Amino acid sequence: MVIGHECAGIIEEIGSEVKNLVPGDRVALEPGIGCWRCDLCKEGRYNICPDMKFFATPPVHGSLARQVVHPADLCFKLPDNLSLEEGAMCEPLSVAVHACRRANIGPETNVLVMGAGPIGLVTLLAARAFGAPRIVIVDVDDYRLSVANNLGADGVVKVSTNMQDIPEEVERICEVMGAVGVHVTFDCAGFNKTMSTALSATRAGGKVCLVGLGHNEMTVPLTPAAAREVDIIGIFRYKNTWPLCIELLRSGKIDVKPLITHRFGFSQKEVEEAFETSARGGDAIKVMFNL
Amino acid sequence: MVIGHECAGIIEEIGSEVKNLVPGDRVALEPGIGCWRCDLCKEGRYNICPDMKFFATPPVHGSLARQVVHPADLCFKLPDNLSLEEGAMCEPLSVAVHACRRANIGPETNVLVMGAGPIGLVTLLAARAFGAPRIVIVDVDDYRLSVANNLGADGVVKVSTNMQDIPEEVERICEVMGAVGVHVTFDCAGFNKTMSTALSATRAGGKVCLVGLGHNEMTVPLTPAAAREVDIIGIFRYKNTWPLCIELLRSGKIDVKPLITHRFGFSQKEVEEAFETSARGGDAIKVMFNL
Amino acid sequence: MVIGHECAGIIEEIGSEVKNLVPGDRVALEPGIGCWRCDLCKEGRYNICPDMKFFATPPVHGSLARQVVHPADLCFKLPDNLSLEEGAMCEPLSVAVHACRRANIGPETNVLVMGAGPIGLVTLLAARAFGAPRIVIVDVDDYRLSVANNLGADGVVKVSTNMQDIPEEVERICEVMGAVGVHVTFDCAGFNKTMSTALSATRAGGKVCLVGLGHNEMTVPLTPAAAREVDIIGIFRYKNTWPLCIELLRSGKIDVKPLITHRFGFSQKEVEEAFETSARGGDAIKVMFNL
Amino acid sequence: MVIGHECAGIIEEIGSEVKNLVPGDRVALEPGIGCWRCDLCKEGRYNICPDMKFFATPPVHGSLARQVVHPADLCFKLPDNLSLEEGAMCEPLSVAVHACRRANIGPETNVLVMGAGPIGLVTLLAARAFGAPRIVIVDVDDYRLSVANNLGADGVVKVSTNMQDIPEEVERICEVMGAVGVHVTFDCAGFNKTMSTALSATRAGGKVCLVGLGHNEMTVPLTPAAAREVDIIGIFRYKNTWPLCIELLRSGKIDVKPLITHRFGFSQKEVEEAFETSARGGDAIKVMFNL
Repeated sequence: MVIGHECAGIIEEIGSEVKNLVPGDRVALEPGIGCWRCDLCKEGRYNICPDMKFFATPPVHGSLARQVVHPADLCFKLPDNLSLEEGAMCEPLSVAVHACRRANIGPETNVLVMGAGPIGLVTLLAARAFGAPRIVIVDVDDYRLSVANNLGADGVVKVSTNMQDIPEEVERICEVMGAVGVHVTFDCAGFNKTMSTALSATRAGGKVCLVGLGHNEMTVPLTPAAAREVDIIGIFRYKNTWPLCIELLRSGKIDVKPLITHRFGFSQKEVEEAFETSARGGDAIKVMFNL
Repeated sequence: MVIGHECAGIIEEIGSEVKNLVPGDRVALEPGIGCWRCDLCKEGRYNICPDMKFFATPPVHGSLARQVVHPADLCFKLPDNLSLEEGAMCEPLSVAVHACRRANIGPETNVLVMGAGPIGLVTLLAARAFGAPRIVIVDVDDYRLSVANNLGADGVVKVSTNMQDIPEEVERICEVMGAVGVHVTFDCAGFNKTMSTALSATRAGGKVCLVGLGHNEMTVPLTPAAAREVDIIGIFRYKNTWPLCIELLRSGKIDVKPLITHRFGFSQKEVEEAFETSARGGDAIKVMFNL
Repeated sequence: MVIGHECAGIIEEIGSEVKNLVPGDRVALEPGIGCWRCDLCKEGRYNICPDMKFFATPPVHGSLARQVVHPADLCFKLPDNLSLEEGAMCEPLSVAVHACRRANIGPETNVLVMGAGPIGLVTLLAARAFGAPRIVIVDVDDYRLSVANNLGADGVVKVSTNMQDIPEEVERICEVMGAVGVHVTFDCAGFNKTMSTALSATRAGGKVCLVGLGHNEMTVPLTPAAAREVDIIGIFRYKNTWPLCIELLRSGKIDVKPLITHRFGFSQKEVEEAFETSARGGDAIKVMFNL
Repeated sequence: MVIGHECAGIIEEIGSEVKNLVPGDRVALEPGIGCWRCDLCKEGRYNICPDMKFFATPPVHGSLARQVVHPADLCFKLPDNLSLEEGAMCEPLSVAVHACRRANIGPETNVLVMGAGPIGLVTLLAARAFGAPRIVIVDVDDYRLSVANNLGADGVVKVSTNMQDIPEEVERICEVMGAVGVHVTFDCAGFNKTMSTALSATRAGGKVCLVGLGHNEMTVPLTPAAAREVDIIGIFRYKNTWPLCIELLRSGKIDVKPLITHRFGFSQKEVEEAFETSARGGDAIKVMFNL
């Protein structure tokens, strides 16, 4: 994957047929460009178009550049009350919004989130904005759970990495969730253990949405889940999410600012430092470059 | 599970408030009785009601008896042109019909069926009745594939039980299916290998429906499937399927008679023989008792 | 219709098999009892069951009585922070919730509400709780519009009762709504004019949900709406709404207290006065009896 | 509307990037070209794109010409067993297919068709191909009903143009349909009377799909229909229908040849004669030009 697909910037020049933008506009960029010729594009599922061009094909390497050329209909104007940083956050938020849409989250959907990393946290925020009445989030790390708590989780459950603990942990999760149970689980980690927990903790007729992509092969209790009609929903990136993300940010229903923990300039040295910070984890959630 | 849940019979007596039936009516029986009090029943998903009574609870052991008591709204009158045997076949057919409904089969859905056993064969018949334009069926056994061929499969693919063969077999399946590809796969076997094949053979945006319930744990390439938005749909039994099954049989859109390969009386000796025949497999698809 | 179907009370006695309730529990009552035998009940659409018993059949006249007998699964326990009055409000709120569900309201649905009477106002509150980002409400009456404003409408539009004004009013409505337009309109009045306005103001691919039931025959521009794939959704009462309503009230996402404008005792004189108050309209939204 | 949007032809020249076609290919043409920039296009509803270009914009007048220029992804190759005439019939058939999709026709949907003109007849054929078990068709004309009968209608009902006859006609329609009733009605005429009949004849929870576009304003019993949750679905043209239409014709599930009743050459005189034939009605269903 080309690095640097979460970005926002300022319009410098527009094509002669572009009407929705003028130079100087601050925009967030949707990086994927569908072919609009295949049946998937025409059915509205352009995110899984087999000919999708994702942001930039080599030798243009993503948005870690001072200038990019991009189709006008994939540049979304930011309202005055949103920063470019918040605009760039539309990309990870889009993953969560697409997951919430596919899993049909609403005011009747109790949500379990496996993993309190960056994707787990934006999923928590998106599920709340979609109306989920009760959201419980699970992680192995106390710091991450405390961040989730601050972002409004209704309950947090600390778990181990040990497969043997699943039955007991599922019990604790269900207790924290309450009698109605878990309607939808987002597995934002993608491990055997998180997926197994997800499949066991979700109530009959519910859904597990696999958001975090881990190992190719997974060993999970698929059969008992299927026999309770717990469906597994896959997601790939996003489609038609930018307008909604911008609206959720503009209206304040979602605040992504607490997720931006580190900021860097764009010198060689700072870029290297930024990648190290991001790789190290710890208290880094999202790392931003300001050009 | 109580044995004997696929049955049909003749009404002997009715309750005082029953209006849809009279003694002498030939009926097929839907074995599961929902509680009609829980939220799943009220939402129309009574098949996964946690308080479902399935046919008969001990000490009444299913329909392997000369008389049973059953709610009138779960006794469905058979038209004159259907035999009691065909009536009893509504039960396995219901599993297939429920799977086709959940997977939303229609005239645009190319279908792959993993496994040409009894459930694979009724799924083939049901998918055809739901309008599937192209149905390919896969098995390890030549005889079963020849039965599938006779029942109208558009293509059959013989496979091994060896995991290493999956990539080559997926290629052959896709060739037999044609350029548009597989929209929905029904895994009617439930092995690691059939499920892995199903997940790989299904096109982006398609669905895999797990019909056959095998081992609890499965090791399958879940992540790449999810990343192509191939969803996994579970099914449990059926709901509201008897009227449709009877209509499909009555109109001749589905003919289940070729699936009834053996018939037995109801003496102790014949019952034992019947169970042996069924367990042995071979050319036995469905074994019937006539009381 | 039997009068008195919006109510809540205290459990005095329970049947021997009732496990979810004990005497002394404060409960809200769902008045409609499905037959659980017909295909509509079994598909989860019990609200349109042809054999539905609504609350009480004569000679028991609804809930305007000191005691009623009702199935335990239709008595929903109220949490401590909700009053019986709020419990009784679950009934009108259920109409709005059912409408929002059928029209699939979410964080991407701009909503137009025609009519700011009691049903229009609960629809406004429900649409907000379902995540609608922008809600505009229309009425002929300034007082009602000011109530809507106080309840959180994003915009209000005063209209006439004159059919000739529709084009100009649609223009004003669209201006107040903004560039994205109206995705779903709830017609909570049910007049030729409100329905015609609804059909014209809703954007291509949107929906009009007819909530308020007025004259049997309506003269409306059906053809141009159909040619823009604006669908018309009907609703009848509600189904499975009490748990959600109670949760929305409990969590404070919806506050119905401002809608209860008048309270009466249960003497003959007070009852008469109450009906007069309600019929007179004016500043009366909902009138409550305390027994 | 530009005349001549139902057509098929032979590829003469292709653009340099076209890979799916070669000169000499026989193709059917989908006439509408979406913008692929607006939200409706991106959601897969390009048929209601506000910037749709329909076939040809003046001064190029549709397909009544010896050569047309058209995007390659809207030219669909015809299999050898289909004639160009059948290819041209994909256009009216697409209207019916789109209606069947939006109304979700399947093996459980009893269908009523109002009007046995060309659109009513292709709707009959499409509903059958989608699996509708029972289709009843209604018209004022004996000849049209006899054509419908020959095309496989399960029942026909002759009606008057008199509004007073609706109750008696609805009764007859319901008798011919049978006890289960009408799930979906396609109004292929678009008159007050056909729509009123449709709304009354459709069972609770069903749908009426308005296919034929008549007068702008309609006077119909909207309220009682809404109160039985009978929804009204609009359709506009079609989207993604050509591959399915071609498959339905290729496989023989639909035979449109009986609908092509008249053929003309392309001289001035013959063209005039063709339009007169078409306008006159009588036994003319579809009139073809061979160039």
